[in-house]
Amino acid sequence: MTKLDPARDPPRYIKLNERDNVAIVVNDFGLAAGSVFPDGLTLKAFVPQGHKTALVEIAEGGAIRRYGEIIGHAKAAIQAGEWVEESLIAMPDAPELSALEIATRVPTPLPPLEGFTFEGYKNRDGSVGTKNILAISTSVQCVKGTLDYAIKRIRSELLPKYSNVDDVVGLTHAFGCGVAINAPDAVIPIRSLQNLATNPNFGGEAMVVGLGCEKLAPERLLPEGATDSVMRMQDEDLEGFAAIVERILNMAETRLAVLNQRRRETCPASALVVGLQCGGSDAFSGVTANPAVGFAADLLVRAGATVMFSEVTEVRDAINLLTRRAATPEVGRALIREMAWYDAYLARGGADRSANTTPGNKKGGLANIVEKSLGSIVKSGSSAIVGVLSPGEKAEQKGLLFAATPASDFICGTLQLASGMTLQVFTTGRGTPYGLAAAPVIKVGTRSELAHRWRDLIDFNAGLIATGERTIEESGWDLFRLILDVASGRTKPWSDRWGLHNDLILFNPAPVT
Amino acid sequence: MTKLDPARDPPRYIKLNERDNVAIVVNDFGLAAGSVFPDGLTLKAFVPQGHKTALVEIAEGGAIRRYGEIIGHAKAAIQAGEWVEESLIAMPDAPELSALEIATRVPTPLPPLEGFTFEGYKNRDGSVGTKNILAISTSVQCVKGTLDYAIKRIRSELLPKYSNVDDVVGLTHAFGCGVAINAPDAVIPIRSLQNLATNPNFGGEAMVVGLGCEKLAPERLLPEGATDSVMRMQDEDLEGFAAIVERILNMAETRLAVLNQRRRETCPASALVVGLQCGGSDAFSGVTANPAVGFAADLLVRAGATVMFSEVTEVRDAINLLTRRAATPEVGRALIREMAWYDAYLARGGADRSANTTPGNKKGGLANIVEKSLGSIVKSGSSAIVGVLSPGEKAEQKGLLFAATPASDFICGTLQLASGMTLQVFTTGRGTPYGLAAAPVIKVGTRSELAHRWRDLIDFNAGLIATGERTIEESGWDLFRLILDVASGRTKPWSDRWGLHNDLILFNPAPVT
Repeated sequence: MTKLDPARDPPRYIKLNERDNVAIVVNDFGLAAGSVFPDGLTLKAFVPQGHKTALVEIAEGGAIRRYGEIIGHAKAAIQAGEWVEESLIAMPDAPELSALEIATRVPTPLPPLEGFTFEGYKNRDGSVGTKNILAISTSVQCVKGTLDYAIKRIRSELLPKYSNVDDVVGLTHAFGCGVAINAPDAVIPIRSLQNLATNPNFGGEAMVVGLGCEKLAPERLLPEGATDSVMRMQDEDLEGFAAIVERILNMAETRLAVLNQRRRETCPASALVVGLQCGGSDAFSGVTANPAVGFAADLLVRAGATVMFSEVTEVRDAINLLTRRAATPEVGRALIREMAWYDAYLARGGADRSANTTPGNKKGGLANIVEKSLGSIVKSGSSAIVGVLSPGEKAEQKGLLFAATPASDFICGTLQLASGMTLQVFTTGRGTPYGLAAAPVIKVGTRSELAHRWRDLIDFNAGLIATGERTIEESGWDLFRLILDVASGRTKPWSDRWGLHNDLILFNPAPVT
Repeated sequence: MTKLDPARDPPRYIKLNERDNVAIVVNDFGLAAGSVFPDGLTLKAFVPQGHKTALVEIAEGGAIRRYGEIIGHAKAAIQAGEWVEESLIAMPDAPELSALEIATRVPTPLPPLEGFTFEGYKNRDGSVGTKNILAISTSVQCVKGTLDYAIKRIRSELLPKYSNVDDVVGLTHAFGCGVAINAPDAVIPIRSLQNLATNPNFGGEAMVVGLGCEKLAPERLLPEGATDSVMRMQDEDLEGFAAIVERILNMAETRLAVLNQRRRETCPASALVVGLQCGGSDAFSGVTANPAVGFAADLLVRAGATVMFSEVTEVRDAINLLTRRAATPEVGRALIREMAWYDAYLARGGADRSANTTPGNKKGGLANIVEKSLGSIVKSGSSAIVGVLSPGEKAEQKGLLFAATPASDFICGTLQLASGMTLQVFTTGRGTPYGLAAAPVIKVGTRSELAHRWRDLIDFNAGLIATGERTIEESGWDLFRLILDVASGRTKPWSDRWGLHNDLILFNPAPVT
């Protein structure tokens, strides 16, 4: 991509809220000192794309406002048109958890949306999948090499015979043995694995490969009575590796035959369980991609679907804005409970929520975790928050839920799958090749430059919002329709076209042994 | 395998030390009540294989001794010939770290062994590899899907042209972003990744694939100045996925051409760096496999090689026997430092070293972590301990070292690779399909039954020691020779024949964000 002609790309900034005294530079390659905006503001220094300039003079100690909220205080006086660099901003403390308003501004429900459907796979338990996958779970990391070997053979020898089955996916991980399985926090990885196996995209046909001497008994990963879906490599009738692989292939083929009978059927949009996540955020995340996702989230909620947003360290500094939106005091208290748990978890390891921001975030214009969080929660749209899930808990209700997870992309994705997610929307500013094998992922880019450069990785360009080519509302509707298309298997996101699938990574805050 | 004829398989037990008041049953399928041993002892109940029977009456509260050490106290009076089940044994406290003898019984060096060699790959830095591998490291988990895709193409399109290169291996992991990179304990995964890239089996030609916005800068994973061995997916000249993959392939091919020039040369056995580990232990581990490994470890030390034993929670309860063997007070204090660190780490997570034993261990006759540890440290042979490595530190000296790692097989293996291991010896009683891509693994079975049943997974049968078909000394020499053969590429262990390779798993005691 060639640099744009400055004459044809006049200086532009985005100010998000009336109360803001900073704005971010839109132009792809930043703007030089002396650049003059339409309102007469003149830059005093080069400001990179996505970075902030002061709209007015800010006194030393004065509040710096973006999204109408304080993202920090000026360490020195800042003139209008200066680059408001990270080093000029003193980060405020996180909101005090004991002093939050709870359920004080519960949003009024938006009018229901009727008539939107997708083509999904109906399950016996009433859930609906967006894919038809044979899942092979594992009770211990020891079996991964063997399962990888077996899956290669299933892919080449069996799958071609069962053309209605999309894929075979190993639910492999680093848990099950060599871990403190009775430590209090081990409940998180255990329930995550239990709930992963029942993800709607697996059609109730998941099987488990275990070793036989591990701490996590393989039966624990399936509903009671499903013992014929479990095999153990150490079973005494299995004489060696070749026999072990044959057993896995036989069990897989039985299940493939069942899954192969299934067909997509028209289902209401309310049957969707959509997870929202961001990774590699920049200053545009909160301006383009996340607002479009937030609008789409509202549409999904209006259509009766389940929508989860997550990432504790990326909501912690904006939690005061979320507890107000809790539908009930109970939900508000649950939000606070998850924040407090994570505060303590980080403190135990000598860290705090400021460990979240990355060099890429900062290069992209995000000065600190406060600014990042304010942009991140925009994904949640404007609905009331009706429920809170602890890490790895199953979503059992419709509407907007907060699923408490680390912000780490792969851990968040794994936990959202455990919570029952059947499709994920993932926003990125810096760009990541993220993908999941178990559910389709729609990658939304925050900037046109990224969407053009990574045209075979980014599925949706929200950068058109920054350039005024598309409104937030229009982009939100576009994204909503894309979600229905992808959920129906009509459109394949890039990660599925390339087969780009990251590993599952469990959240295990308990020690290893 | 059919059950053995009792008439042709007379009752046998193994008593290890004169002071022991229990012995373990050898017979493959256990022994029924009424079975009479050659010395006249009669079983009062069925005792499974590997489990303990009392040789004499033990009073309530009396010490139960195996390996000449106290593995617990009787919760009730135990009669001679009874099954000394786990429930009858009260576990003693771990040895008090402030009350240990240090360097009080330093073993006299055994006579040097001269003339033993293997065919290895000599490196510029003086180290010697047992394989010739192209390693592609990663600075962040985000790139794994992409690297997997690229490696598949390297394997099919490039590797066949470079027949002297054994393999291409991705050093992928769950670190690099979404982690508290400045938390005190993050030094462990960071130095592990840094040292992994310089493992001797990679010939000094490792390259790194990064994303570009991650917390762990890719340059940190290579020696200073090796910047042309780093690529970032977000580099602005890379227009999309296809271009990213081409860049990885081009960089890989340059390095494959260099590695392809290398040939095996005769090297002294002193150039070996051998890691010892056990997984899926049973009561025979300390009787057959680990004594054979211990004997081979002594031979390796006598030949001037580096030998590492590991697994903190499996030495903790026998640390009093190890600190005595420390070559210097400094080494003894370092052993204690690592024990204390791990005690605190486990306590922080609400666990202790007793979280180590697995249901499989117990089924195999190991009542508790004390008994398991006494069997585990037998692997270390009888040499003086000349050095201690904190998790992921590089081994820089010859002789017997304690490399402090968790006992989790995959974490221990990953850390031993980071410490420079070029070959691993892995003992197992219950059986695991363990394997590493970066270094050959010799799997040693503790029992003939396992070695027969898993004849295409177990490389070495130490069970012959239990049946008297082979002495510990003979087995130790056999294993030593097998180590030289495998290190020379003359014999391929089963895991390499099948391509059974588990993932690397980093030890990250710091929080994720």
